[in-house]
Amino acid sequence: MARLLPKLDGVFLQAVSEVAAVNLMYGCGAAGLPSMTFTSSPGFSLMLEGISYMIGAEVPGVFVDVMRGGPGLGNIAPEQSDIKLACRGLGHGNTHGIVLAPATPQEMLDFTFLAFELAFKYRNPTFVLCDGYLGQMTGRVQLPDALVDPGIPSWAVYGDRAHRRNLISSIQLSEADLEAHNVHLNEKYAAMSCDEQRADLYHCEDAEVLLVACNTPARMAKGAVRAARQAGVRAGLFRPQTLWPFPTRILEPLLAGVRRIVVVEASNGQLEDEMRLALSHAEVHGLPDILPVRHFGGVLPQQDEILEAVLRTAAPRSIS
Amino acid sequence: MARLLPKLDGVFLQAVSEVAAVNLMYGCGAAGLPSMTFTSSPGFSLMLEGISYMIGAEVPGVFVDVMRGGPGLGNIAPEQSDIKLACRGLGHGNTHGIVLAPATPQEMLDFTFLAFELAFKYRNPTFVLCDGYLGQMTGRVQLPDALVDPGIPSWAVYGDRAHRRNLISSIQLSEADLEAHNVHLNEKYAAMSCDEQRADLYHCEDAEVLLVACNTPARMAKGAVRAARQAGVRAGLFRPQTLWPFPTRILEPLLAGVRRIVVVEASNGQLEDEMRLALSHAEVHGLPDILPVRHFGGVLPQQDEILEAVLRTAAPRSIS
Amino acid sequence: MARLLPKLDGVFLQAVSEVAAVNLMYGCGAAGLPSMTFTSSPGFSLMLEGISYMIGAEVPGVFVDVMRGGPGLGNIAPEQSDIKLACRGLGHGNTHGIVLAPATPQEMLDFTFLAFELAFKYRNPTFVLCDGYLGQMTGRVQLPDALVDPGIPSWAVYGDRAHRRNLISSIQLSEADLEAHNVHLNEKYAAMSCDEQRADLYHCEDAEVLLVACNTPARMAKGAVRAARQAGVRAGLFRPQTLWPFPTRILEPLLAGVRRIVVVEASNGQLEDEMRLALSHAEVHGLPDILPVRHFGGVLPQQDEILEAVLRTAAPRSIS
Amino acid sequence: MARLLPKLDGVFLQAVSEVAAVNLMYGCGAAGLPSMTFTSSPGFSLMLEGISYMIGAEVPGVFVDVMRGGPGLGNIAPEQSDIKLACRGLGHGNTHGIVLAPATPQEMLDFTFLAFELAFKYRNPTFVLCDGYLGQMTGRVQLPDALVDPGIPSWAVYGDRAHRRNLISSIQLSEADLEAHNVHLNEKYAAMSCDEQRADLYHCEDAEVLLVACNTPARMAKGAVRAARQAGVRAGLFRPQTLWPFPTRILEPLLAGVRRIVVVEASNGQLEDEMRLALSHAEVHGLPDILPVRHFGGVLPQQDEILEAVLRTAAPRSIS
Repeated sequence: MARLLPKLDGVFLQAVSEVAAVNLMYGCGAAGLPSMTFTSSPGFSLMLEGISYMIGAEVPGVFVDVMRGGPGLGNIAPEQSDIKLACRGLGHGNTHGIVLAPATPQEMLDFTFLAFELAFKYRNPTFVLCDGYLGQMTGRVQLPDALVDPGIPSWAVYGDRAHRRNLISSIQLSEADLEAHNVHLNEKYAAMSCDEQRADLYHCEDAEVLLVACNTPARMAKGAVRAARQAGVRAGLFRPQTLWPFPTRILEPLLAGVRRIVVVEASNGQLEDEMRLALSHAEVHGLPDILPVRHFGGVLPQQDEILEAVLRTAAPRSIS
Repeated sequence: MARLLPKLDGVFLQAVSEVAAVNLMYGCGAAGLPSMTFTSSPGFSLMLEGISYMIGAEVPGVFVDVMRGGPGLGNIAPEQSDIKLACRGLGHGNTHGIVLAPATPQEMLDFTFLAFELAFKYRNPTFVLCDGYLGQMTGRVQLPDALVDPGIPSWAVYGDRAHRRNLISSIQLSEADLEAHNVHLNEKYAAMSCDEQRADLYHCEDAEVLLVACNTPARMAKGAVRAARQAGVRAGLFRPQTLWPFPTRILEPLLAGVRRIVVVEASNGQLEDEMRLALSHAEVHGLPDILPVRHFGGVLPQQDEILEAVLRTAAPRSIS
Repeated sequence: MARLLPKLDGVFLQAVSEVAAVNLMYGCGAAGLPSMTFTSSPGFSLMLEGISYMIGAEVPGVFVDVMRGGPGLGNIAPEQSDIKLACRGLGHGNTHGIVLAPATPQEMLDFTFLAFELAFKYRNPTFVLCDGYLGQMTGRVQLPDALVDPGIPSWAVYGDRAHRRNLISSIQLSEADLEAHNVHLNEKYAAMSCDEQRADLYHCEDAEVLLVACNTPARMAKGAVRAARQAGVRAGLFRPQTLWPFPTRILEPLLAGVRRIVVVEASNGQLEDEMRLALSHAEVHGLPDILPVRHFGGVLPQQDEILEAVLRTAAPRSIS
Repeated sequence: MARLLPKLDGVFLQAVSEVAAVNLMYGCGAAGLPSMTFTSSPGFSLMLEGISYMIGAEVPGVFVDVMRGGPGLGNIAPEQSDIKLACRGLGHGNTHGIVLAPATPQEMLDFTFLAFELAFKYRNPTFVLCDGYLGQMTGRVQLPDALVDPGIPSWAVYGDRAHRRNLISSIQLSEADLEAHNVHLNEKYAAMSCDEQRADLYHCEDAEVLLVACNTPARMAKGAVRAARQAGVRAGLFRPQTLWPFPTRILEPLLAGVRRIVVVEASNGQLEDEMRLALSHAEVHGLPDILPVRHFGGVLPQQDEILEAVLRTAAPRSIS
């Protein structure tokens, strides 16, 4: 990035810490400039305070979190360890941001573009959550035909005369003012939740066993779907591309014929929890059996064990 | 604390930052010493990285988070803004810690004692989550009759000869080792989840409308229960004292006769989400109607509006 | 600078602290890039550790210190409070750097160019020391006709193939190695001391009273010289443009006919001490009487009191 | 210290950085509590800003700097690398503090006691400057018979009713106020300079060759004095115990019969410079020849080479 950004009229900054990085982004975003940072799990948690400030002040920015094995320092292998942190723990407050989950190098590129678009559309940070495997993968991608200079938005606190009157403050010390600000933010989250659900469907139309997976584990799940179909089982893959909002609207219509959901993840049920919570809100009761395939610490679920879960006759309960 | 701790053979340390505070606690806990810190929402988010390290290294410690209005700096009025962060976003990893939610000064005291007991029992940080109202309240409390010096646990990295061989490392760089470590931690979370559910019940035995609330909002809810009973409605209050694990085992048997749950909270549905997720895992389907009473920014739900929700004939849907 | 530097193919970076700033400069300089920072007294002291590392690793860089009133935070008025720190206290070690002392906006510009030249010539940080008055002054300056791109020096640790083999380490842990490194550095300081003495002379050729002053106080001293000449006293102004090395070689030949030196400074004798120490090394004994005119805290010596010191018949001792 | 201080009713604090350490000391000192810190060269330079604040606010404290080889990180072997920093570069302002230079474990102890006494007497930080050899030496020492609890001084900003009205501010933003504050501080430095000069004399009464040395090098110099006397040369050792103020009043009367001074130091002339500057102010002209014996990087001057310098017939010039 240090080499490439100047050619694109961009600036690369090496911050002295994660806390410094998020606050530099706060400043950039407040000035109306598109900015992004890259980090990995422990670094991401150090940015949460600043993200909460950005959400409160309605400042855009793009955060890429290449999730690693945890807890603590862990290792840099592909665990999906931060899903709940990104979807449920952004900042300390009642806050949300759109969380995109790419599964390929092309989606890494496309979702980053999309993340900027969404961040400025909603004036809210957007998150690209991928795993250590994707973070170290090289692949051929299709670049966009043209880049558009977004210009400086009218609300920006930019240093020229036109923007000098803008001042964004997240401090609403009176309880009534802060409640009103939260009501406004909640309406924004509701709009995001309604309009920005995204998912990729693979053989879902007639599926009796539905695999749910994202990031790299979705690639193994796809292989398992193909193998299951060859074995005569009507399997399909539901791959959420947004983890928050969880794409319930797309999922719900598929559930009628499904007798089992197999959630494949490199974490201890974080993706499953997002799905459960979303379905609970969607008043989807009478769920199919949910069967987990989980790994941790950088070990990825393998096609064979996924297939085994798809084909298993008796559906055991998930425990968590 | 600076004045009182020395009299109890304790040490008070003013850290230079939240990041410093959590790392001091990491050190104290690793040496087998009981340590605690107090913070408020944004400060808590800065501690998450360190908490993840402590959980990974199985180091005890007690964190008191006096939740404030958010997002960002917000104000110091009583919002329950960090429930999801404490229950779902501890550290970046697949981690959990027991979260206690006091509602009175006496519980503030008792749950702090309990938090130390649980932290050392499970060698895992424990969290006391209260709100800005409780944090600024004075009340008469019953002190324990005696304090027991816990001594230095056998596993501690203490600086004497007996403990010198202990060394705790959270770095398991190989994927297989890190997965095994996570399996071990998950078993510990499962044990906590099974054995440490706590709740306080008030007129729940015959309740047809069940109020669910914790911290200060539970006090207004209690008043509403009394008022509803006087109005002839069989209301009851289910007050979780542990937010993680959510006390589903205690809640579930009560639900048979309940036709409506009213979740009263000073947040936008964080407590409700914990309940929904726990009930989803408990395979409790066919939930009663769930009706929220929510406030933000330090505004607290008032008895009248809670009562109004209890008495309302048609149960509107919760939106989130 | 944030606006201007990009037009000159430069980069402006806002560091999060003085410690961060000096370490960013360490990195830039090691990569062979010209870099500079601006600070004011307390900030400068926080950079000393990094400066010591830069001198040890022979890394160039330009530091502009706009000296303020002290001690502590003081005020931002024109005291010459850091002369001894810049000339005698650079880093903790046995280190030196050339210290330039401009007196006009034009010299502010010219000495900054010169500072870069000297920093790269000697691979050593260079310092521009001015005062709060100069730091806030606007003046018309003559820009250079052309700027030369210095290119990347052969020794730089630059990220391309040609420079990849360079590695500069200041860690010489064995005593003998570290002594040899110090001998090398001392030879470099001796070369700077010999070749880089600079001073501006005003009516010094026949002076019987020699005023010594630098930075803004030199402007008042110049006025006093003119007034003294009108009063029939052969006064002159010796204005060191390098404070380290102190320009003894230029001063010494002037002293023969001088019966009194008046040191005019906005500090408590720091300039006088540099002169005394340099003259002691130059084995100039039998000094003329030295009479100080000193102010602090942002108060500047005024022409009248300087003139009074020039004209005073009996020369009192300086006390310090 | 962590083990010993509690037994003496003291508190041991591990600061997260040198900047934190000096600011903790600022707070302790302002509260009237005796506090000290230990550091080594680069760490000391990071404390200069805080020391400047302490001097400005007239807050006592004791700093022990175990000087190491430099520049930069260097090594931890015994160089006397910080003499000029401690004597000429304290903080960025026109500031001074008493600098004590022990040569034995007993003096390490005694000078630390003395440093506290002087720090509170003058309400100014005091410095104990020793070298890496002394810092790692064990020796039998004579403890004091009794320790006196100094109590809380009347000026302290202590948290009880009696001291609540004290407020010390180093911010004198108006130039006239800040000048007046500097005049007051300068008077204090003058009093220290006059009353606190200390030196240890060994065979100085009839010396024709005077060795000047402090810290560990003074021990080699003492051996050289004995050897020189055996060789028939009247040598003596002048060992400054205060480096600032330099003990000129004790040195000056000894100089009458001295034809050569040999300055023995583990630095490139820092001790010699302090002596030269002090003698210049004392108007001691017509100095004896000054011959340096210098080493760096942790190499110590050895008795033989010192003796050789003492016995050398022709006195070469010192170069610096």
